[in-house]
Amino acid sequence: MEYQNALSKLASAFGDQLTTVKSVRETHGQGEGHQKNCPPDAVLFAISTEDVATAVRICAAHKMPIIPYGAGSSLEGHVSAPKGGLSINLSKMNKVLALNALDMDVRIEPGITRKQLNQHLRDQGLFFPVDPGADATIGGMVATRASGTNAVKYGTMREQILSLKVVTPTGTIIETGTRAKKSAAGYDLTHLYCGSEGTLGIITEATLKLHPIPEKIAAGVCCFPDLESAINTVISVMQSGIGISRIELLDVLSIKAVNGYSKTNHKEAATLFLEFSGTNAAVAEQIETCKAIANDFNGADIEFAENQEAINKLWHARHQLYYATRALAPGKESITTDVCVPISQLADCMLETREDLTSSGLVATMLGHVGDGNFHTIILFDADAADEIAQVTELSEGMAKRAIAMGGTCTGEHGIGCGKQTYLEWERGNAVDIMRSVKTALDPDNIMNPGKIFRG
Amino acid sequence: MEYQNALSKLASAFGDQLTTVKSVRETHGQGEGHQKNCPPDAVLFAISTEDVATAVRICAAHKMPIIPYGAGSSLEGHVSAPKGGLSINLSKMNKVLALNALDMDVRIEPGITRKQLNQHLRDQGLFFPVDPGADATIGGMVATRASGTNAVKYGTMREQILSLKVVTPTGTIIETGTRAKKSAAGYDLTHLYCGSEGTLGIITEATLKLHPIPEKIAAGVCCFPDLESAINTVISVMQSGIGISRIELLDVLSIKAVNGYSKTNHKEAATLFLEFSGTNAAVAEQIETCKAIANDFNGADIEFAENQEAINKLWHARHQLYYATRALAPGKESITTDVCVPISQLADCMLETREDLTSSGLVATMLGHVGDGNFHTIILFDADAADEIAQVTELSEGMAKRAIAMGGTCTGEHGIGCGKQTYLEWERGNAVDIMRSVKTALDPDNIMNPGKIFRG
Repeated sequence: MEYQNALSKLASAFGDQLTTVKSVRETHGQGEGHQKNCPPDAVLFAISTEDVATAVRICAAHKMPIIPYGAGSSLEGHVSAPKGGLSINLSKMNKVLALNALDMDVRIEPGITRKQLNQHLRDQGLFFPVDPGADATIGGMVATRASGTNAVKYGTMREQILSLKVVTPTGTIIETGTRAKKSAAGYDLTHLYCGSEGTLGIITEATLKLHPIPEKIAAGVCCFPDLESAINTVISVMQSGIGISRIELLDVLSIKAVNGYSKTNHKEAATLFLEFSGTNAAVAEQIETCKAIANDFNGADIEFAENQEAINKLWHARHQLYYATRALAPGKESITTDVCVPISQLADCMLETREDLTSSGLVATMLGHVGDGNFHTIILFDADAADEIAQVTELSEGMAKRAIAMGGTCTGEHGIGCGKQTYLEWERGNAVDIMRSVKTALDPDNIMNPGKIFRG
Repeated sequence: MEYQNALSKLASAFGDQLTTVKSVRETHGQGEGHQKNCPPDAVLFAISTEDVATAVRICAAHKMPIIPYGAGSSLEGHVSAPKGGLSINLSKMNKVLALNALDMDVRIEPGITRKQLNQHLRDQGLFFPVDPGADATIGGMVATRASGTNAVKYGTMREQILSLKVVTPTGTIIETGTRAKKSAAGYDLTHLYCGSEGTLGIITEATLKLHPIPEKIAAGVCCFPDLESAINTVISVMQSGIGISRIELLDVLSIKAVNGYSKTNHKEAATLFLEFSGTNAAVAEQIETCKAIANDFNGADIEFAENQEAINKLWHARHQLYYATRALAPGKESITTDVCVPISQLADCMLETREDLTSSGLVATMLGHVGDGNFHTIILFDADAADEIAQVTELSEGMAKRAIAMGGTCTGEHGIGCGKQTYLEWERGNAVDIMRSVKTALDPDNIMNPGKIFRG
């Protein structure tokens, strides 16, 4: 085996923490996306920054690839090992290291999931807002610049990170920032690492901003006669500047999928899932403005969830939509698209996309964090049918090209991984050369998650 | 002259746009800080991205340094040319290229100043919030990751930039992002360039987020019996989560300076300058909460400005504080410190600093964007008196070390330039090596603003 020397040294250094068992390697060779399983040669269950640094030094000496692994919820093949190597599983590094309630920040290990973190915070009157569909690890969310339903109010991971501890490709441990809310001290390495998808080093700790739980939260659903009316409502709400906290769009088929999977009983129509938060007075103002706008576009009355439990249930159902869609046709594979456009382009972009999907004849739901101009389609296809694969590829490429032409991006929150490397080149052009220069400077032997972000 | 060949080519290419007149070169050799004047060999008044790219290619071929110049308002020597070279003055590139009111974004050239931009926006119901003391150019503000009084509500330049056009050290033109509100497409070059102080390339266009002018704005001042009471009020206001839009602290001497320079009549006491904004209901709530907190710390009643003109006058006086302080002792030189700490450390940090200043016997004002934990001291000294220079150095170093020890940063918003390179090493340690690797990869001949950020 190519990396036998490295594997022997890793085995000596880590004993039972290292495994080469096939089933474990296969679990680590694929996320939740449709990309093919590429298992690593071994998996290390790290329990400390020192573990990671030791492993990186051994791998670096033998030019053996290193792939960080959190919850395995990536949709873009980030965790796969196309060139073999060592998968470093960080899920056992899931401690809260320091909670500074007065400063509203927290220091965590990267393997903690978003739900575990919020569970830890629940008695503090504080919460961490970023909520991708899956219960991802914070480390993975930093590495992919993730967001979710709360981004319209709180921003994405990009806006929540104060500092990172990183093991660099040489096995050196650096700290990228401080606990200060702002700083102009040198290059912004924190944001260089946020979204670097494991290609520049491995995040082993992070300092995150927290937010006070609002005095009042109200959430509900609002049905529309068609997709266009719902989208136009979103655009007007955003332009009103009322500061809504979540505004999610589900198309008819998404609602059917949710009803089937989560045993809910929503009317089958294009629907906005809405949340208002703030002081009592602020929430009352937000609701009044939003109702008036929805009314202008023939929206039904907002059906409010009656209590926090019902609100939680509502958002849980929304977060399960990926699984709900897949349950529409068990056995089929799925691809999730992820474009994001300026809000003024959202109606055109979504409606043209819906037409393409309908023409294709494939089953596909359409949903999105539309307040940010970000939406997904989840397209089901038969992984053994060449014509369906070709159709899906054409649809996905078409969406990326359309979004880029409209001033948007091929990925709002899922990242590039091994699925969108060509799209990245379409979008960023020769700026990708600068990214490559940075990659080569920091990781000249290309041991850090090779085959991700960059083509070839 | 070392760069004679390059200068000849630049003269041929640019004619009257290039000058080597001594007085112009000297104007470009120093910002508003105390660092010594290092004039460039020539100054180019660029009027297009192509101008900049052409100049960079000529300079790169001769390894001639390039120093970008905007308004010259840097406090950390960013514009000086310690190794000679070409200063590229971007102030004639000050157009608004595209205003997308529906998307609340704007595309500008880098030489536009913050006041020029807001003048352009005034009929749109939108504004650009970042407001350093000086009327700096947006390009300079991007390059130094600037902020100001509004950062407590709106964030710093870091949070306002969607994309940048940059001329790289090889003269290539890249675009770092799109108009989408969020993206997970590859490395975050936008934020790598934001705060890079001209050392990685020259920004020639930028897409910025805009914000709706709030329905209601109220501003006023609140006096306290001592600095500690004022600081504790700030900490409590921030922890209340009421979402104040500005909260600025001025010590007694700052108020005296303002009164003298701006012909105001504020009571000579530690004072908070406050601004509340949002809907009418939200502002009423903010004021009520803030009054109650100030009252707990023996603050006087808030004296509100009566109308928008009075509000503008209030903030203009605050923005003039650098000049007001210098007017306390004409002929003296000044140094402006710029630490930022977690809010829980703010009282200790400011009170210990005040003690050091008082012990020194030097005249110094103390003021700050305290809602972010960021404060400045402006210390006046005799540039010909070795003992005063030594004192100022010791004070400045002591503040940086204290802030770093408290989990903060040596610069909240002014940048490193040529004044704080050692402080950067104290703060970021071996992470500076990673910054150097990035610098070397992108600019191997070190032609882009050499002598800034990095020591040696």
